[in-house]
Amino acid sequence: MSEDENIVYIGRKPVMSYVLAVITHLNRPDAKEVVLKARGRAITTAVDTAEVTRRRFMSELTVDKISIGTEELPQEVGGTRAVSTIEITLKL
Amino acid sequence: MSEDENIVYIGRKPVMSYVLAVITHLNRPDAKEVVLKARGRAITTAVDTAEVTRRRFMSELTVDKISIGTEELPQEVGGTRAVSTIEITLKL
Repeated sequence: MSEDENIVYIGRKPVMSYVLAVITHLNRPDAKEVVLKARGRAITTAVDTAEVTRRRFMSELTVDKISIGTEELPQEVGGTRAVSTIEITLKL
Repeated sequence: MSEDENIVYIGRKPVMSYVLAVITHLNRPDAKEVVLKARGRAITTAVDTAEVTRRRFMSELTVDKISIGTEELPQEVGGTRAVSTIEITLKL
């Protein structure tokens, strides 16, 4: 889980690690929004993170935008593999 | 995979089964849009279905709306378990 500006990258950790990252992010004095980015199997975790944060911890949080896309990942054997991505913008 | 009006429910089948369902749906004479609905682990498959359909088969297709939510599923042992959901609306 890395954090860059207002982005939280979602990977294979448990949902609560990312929920905590989002809350930490949004508790900064000037924080207004946070973007969850995930690809492949982590897409479900990104949706879980948004929902758990909103329902259990920060009811004033709204889903501002959701976009999906595709990334071409280079393969070790050569060529690329397409993987789906999601970006969820949460706003205070 | 069941289909109701313009809804395609995404489950555990391979992505291409749902891509085919979406294409079949949108090839009807009066079809303008289709809604992909999924929950839990199938959320990733829903995003894959939208992306593969759009990129490989129907480039005129656009993502009109994406919404996420939570459903309370009753448990056999009693109580409920929260599961995340997604709805992706694709428009011609």
